[in-house]
Amino acid sequence: MDNYTAPINDMLAALRIVGIDDLLALPDFDKVDVAAIHDVLDGFGALAENVIAPTNRVGDANGATLDTATGVVHTAPELAEAYAEYSRGGWTALSAPEALGGGGFPAIAATAMREMFGSANMALSLNPVLTQSAIELLERWGDDRQNALYLARLIDGRWTGTMNLTEPDAGSDLGAVRTTATPLDGDRWAINGTKIYITWGDHELTDNIVHLVLARAPGAPGGTKGLSLFLVPKVLVDETGALRGRNGVHALALEHKMGIHASPTCVLQFDDAVGELVGPLHNGMAAMFSMMNPARIAIGLQGVSIGERALQQATAFAAERRQGRVGAENPGPIAGHPDVQRMLLDMTVTVRAARRLVYATSIAVDVAGHHPDAEVRIAAQARADLLTPLAKAWSTDEGVRLASLAIQIHGGMGFIEETGVAQHYRDARIAPIYEGTNGIQAIDLVGRKVARDGGAAMSSLITEIVATVDRADAIPALADAASSLRTATATLTATTAWIVDTFSSATSDVFAGATAYLGLAARCAAAEILLREAVEAVETAEAGEGTDADAVVGSAADAARLAAQVTFFAAEQLDSAPSAASIMLGAGVLAAGLA
Amino acid sequence: MDNYTAPINDMLAALRIVGIDDLLALPDFDKVDVAAIHDVLDGFGALAENVIAPTNRVGDANGATLDTATGVVHTAPELAEAYAEYSRGGWTALSAPEALGGGGFPAIAATAMREMFGSANMALSLNPVLTQSAIELLERWGDDRQNALYLARLIDGRWTGTMNLTEPDAGSDLGAVRTTATPLDGDRWAINGTKIYITWGDHELTDNIVHLVLARAPGAPGGTKGLSLFLVPKVLVDETGALRGRNGVHALALEHKMGIHASPTCVLQFDDAVGELVGPLHNGMAAMFSMMNPARIAIGLQGVSIGERALQQATAFAAERRQGRVGAENPGPIAGHPDVQRMLLDMTVTVRAARRLVYATSIAVDVAGHHPDAEVRIAAQARADLLTPLAKAWSTDEGVRLASLAIQIHGGMGFIEETGVAQHYRDARIAPIYEGTNGIQAIDLVGRKVARDGGAAMSSLITEIVATVDRADAIPALADAASSLRTATATLTATTAWIVDTFSSATSDVFAGATAYLGLAARCAAAEILLREAVEAVETAEAGEGTDADAVVGSAADAARLAAQVTFFAAEQLDSAPSAASIMLGAGVLAAGLA
Repeated sequence: MDNYTAPINDMLAALRIVGIDDLLALPDFDKVDVAAIHDVLDGFGALAENVIAPTNRVGDANGATLDTATGVVHTAPELAEAYAEYSRGGWTALSAPEALGGGGFPAIAATAMREMFGSANMALSLNPVLTQSAIELLERWGDDRQNALYLARLIDGRWTGTMNLTEPDAGSDLGAVRTTATPLDGDRWAINGTKIYITWGDHELTDNIVHLVLARAPGAPGGTKGLSLFLVPKVLVDETGALRGRNGVHALALEHKMGIHASPTCVLQFDDAVGELVGPLHNGMAAMFSMMNPARIAIGLQGVSIGERALQQATAFAAERRQGRVGAENPGPIAGHPDVQRMLLDMTVTVRAARRLVYATSIAVDVAGHHPDAEVRIAAQARADLLTPLAKAWSTDEGVRLASLAIQIHGGMGFIEETGVAQHYRDARIAPIYEGTNGIQAIDLVGRKVARDGGAAMSSLITEIVATVDRADAIPALADAASSLRTATATLTATTAWIVDTFSSATSDVFAGATAYLGLAARCAAAEILLREAVEAVETAEAGEGTDADAVVGSAADAARLAAQVTFFAAEQLDSAPSAASIMLGAGVLAAGLA
Repeated sequence: MDNYTAPINDMLAALRIVGIDDLLALPDFDKVDVAAIHDVLDGFGALAENVIAPTNRVGDANGATLDTATGVVHTAPELAEAYAEYSRGGWTALSAPEALGGGGFPAIAATAMREMFGSANMALSLNPVLTQSAIELLERWGDDRQNALYLARLIDGRWTGTMNLTEPDAGSDLGAVRTTATPLDGDRWAINGTKIYITWGDHELTDNIVHLVLARAPGAPGGTKGLSLFLVPKVLVDETGALRGRNGVHALALEHKMGIHASPTCVLQFDDAVGELVGPLHNGMAAMFSMMNPARIAIGLQGVSIGERALQQATAFAAERRQGRVGAENPGPIAGHPDVQRMLLDMTVTVRAARRLVYATSIAVDVAGHHPDAEVRIAAQARADLLTPLAKAWSTDEGVRLASLAIQIHGGMGFIEETGVAQHYRDARIAPIYEGTNGIQAIDLVGRKVARDGGAAMSSLITEIVATVDRADAIPALADAASSLRTATATLTATTAWIVDTFSSATSDVFAGATAYLGLAARCAAAEILLREAVEAVETAEAGEGTDADAVVGSAADAARLAAQVTFFAAEQLDSAPSAASIMLGAGVLAAGLA
């Protein structure tokens, strides 16, 4: 029941509606076309279906363990085999620059690939997710020697990377980091301290691990401004990359987590571990911020990944499980019961919406990095910055909800571990927490993304939403959805203005409504894409252009399905979006209610 | 961090607002007063806090196991000790009739007690929950001999009871039950078949277990009409109750569940097990229906129980955990951050709302059973029937959401099993499934509870809601909440009329919106109680009556807190309640969207 089939067609449709054609028309991507991306999806899809997905249950059941006698972290052997195939396939290099041995594909291609990895085995996929963050950090801040020695080996998959930020008293507040860096001879530093929640912080999948570590150098100021970034290899290497004995970093313990059991979450102890500085001194937070958008997009994507896998499992179960009369069949498949259909449609539409929202965020990063026009780059960066907290928070919250719906569709069997759907529910729950809790995302949204630019980036998004609503208004099948989106967008406009007006004078009032505002904004942004896609599908079908074999959408049946889906999404999610009263509630009501 | 404190004050406030004073004024309860109930809550609260609550983690970590060699089910020894204290205290007897050795308390007192049991250890509390169902079934359908032999021993806690309904192909659809009953000599029957998901189906807490089993006698019609109810003891007994050797019923296997690990969920095999008929032949479903409301109320209560425990743990954590600046404190407690406050208030208000909705349902059952006026009894029964699916489904869905919020407040630590909050999230997830999935509840609501009586019972509820809104309108601090409730109730009125008009002609369309309708109805019903309580608190405070030491509410501070809470609930839950469009979407949109 728990097979995984890569949803290539909907991924391609999502890529088109978020603008893959325009992106690939840019000079930087003149060697890439949609057919090449299709090949990538097919190729990785086969790996995900046949090699990675079968490891998901065994990785959960036989979670990572630490041999305290030897200090070695063990994971299920199936994971090492799957990782080796992934590494041999050169998939880590997909979106790295060609100059560094990469494939030169846009990041959106890696995003689509990573969606499938996350569906196939979320816990294992975290290893490449963290490695990708290390890659992006070194691409931006590493020097030529570091790039040749470390970055190249991360890109080709021989080594993996980790991010070492959190400490017992420094979680959401990194200013409290206590790990120290003391200068040694030459460019070497001695790193001392304890880091927690280090994903894939130790393992045997590769013979070395590149730890990127936030630490404080002597004389550095307190708070986040005094943090610097250091590269600390698990195994010391010479300048040829040959291994030269263990460094002073060890896994002290593994966390016993509710989910993602296959992923070793380490307490790492740094005892005079030898590291080297990455980027300028005291530049640690700037470096961290440079990889924050991609990392948050990658986590938002996990909501899509888990939602897709849960949807596939629920769909298969509902088609097989027979209970009660369905038409002439008694017992008939539960997929015939309207209440079950509603859950299945909810899952289907929400996965599609979240996929498009995350893809739209990812492609904005590509445009910001590659468009020849500086103004377009700036606008795309603002869009990426704006959408990132929406993509991260909304998609991961929905991922949890979708996994829960999948359990509900399974009834009693959903609560039994062997069924496998409970794992999705347990795994999904971490995504709203790590890489900045969803509350942090909401605060980031209202402060840095909305108040700071006077609402300009949000206004630009709203303008696009209204334009789509105007197009949809003329199409009878989409009128209800358009009306719901128009109403929700009016609330978004009003509350955006309130945030801009209120933020500096009554920050707490804005923070009190931040999560509600994010929920509204994300639903509007996601609904706009669904609605635009439906508009284009209807227009294509009416123009009789749906006969092209290449058309991902275009038939009258496609148009009807997409219209029904966005109508459902509007009724289910936009009509129930957080109200202006909920967003503008104010901190005083919270304090009074908790008094 | 994970202590439990019985929330006696809010339980008493909830009992008052749902009408405990009027109930205790009835002749049947002339020996019970509020002080006696307060004593019961204090007494059981101490047991829950000091004896039962400490078993929760160990029961989860050392789940029930089956020794396949001996066929014996083992649970953590701490559970047996806690159960023994519970049994010795005579708590099972609390609401049983005095004639049968019971305490003669109303069922609402047992509901309040059971809330605490569920908070203290949900998995262990399932044992008394199922035993209570068996008690209520035998009270109604057992003969004098059965009552003396079995019922008395269930009431005094010496034995426990189970309900055996589900089979591999008969879950939500009990008409597919295949277990057979073959007449033997005298009143004895031979029971053969396999039952699954039997909660506490075997254990060593007591020396006997009374299984109530749905089975089909020879010549019985197919479907649910051919089912009869049989009593099958685990150990055969003579007419004095002395044990006379094992009966032919054994645990074949235990389920490996995501949560409630302490509760053995058994596959029970009946091999020529000797049973006796309970009630008339082919009366099995009628008997089941007679215990359905109380059982569903008990499960709805689990949402309250888990929500309360999760709230207490999250509150304690947020007061201790320091991250980021809060006023002059850096780092300050995260309870000072508005986004965390919002989650805490959400949990606080929702637990209070769910508690009141479940208590209101439970007390309606008491009134229906004990009021001297037949018309009042009939109206109360209709109210209980109407509220039961709301209480079951909404409270359990909210229980899951609240457990998830508690994890979120904990951040990364919430995902670590040792913290204990993950257990609530895993445990809570079964409640929307068992005792009739929440989808079944919604179908029950729109069909049996709304369409069947032409919307009469719902109209009666709506009339009460509108009356409370009218009272609140006059109070400035409650005007926003009143306005939200008025709007939501208008939608409830309109969609109720649509259901009554549509049900017989387009049943699938109504079923397609059933879950959304239930969500709206439950929020309105719960909000009405919160709003009425706030109105009374404001009126009491304004009248200067808040100085009475007995007043649970009454001070100006209480009034302000309750006003803020209902204002929050209205903005958060009523403004975002399912829309008329969502409820009246129709089955066609679902089919088109899934095409």
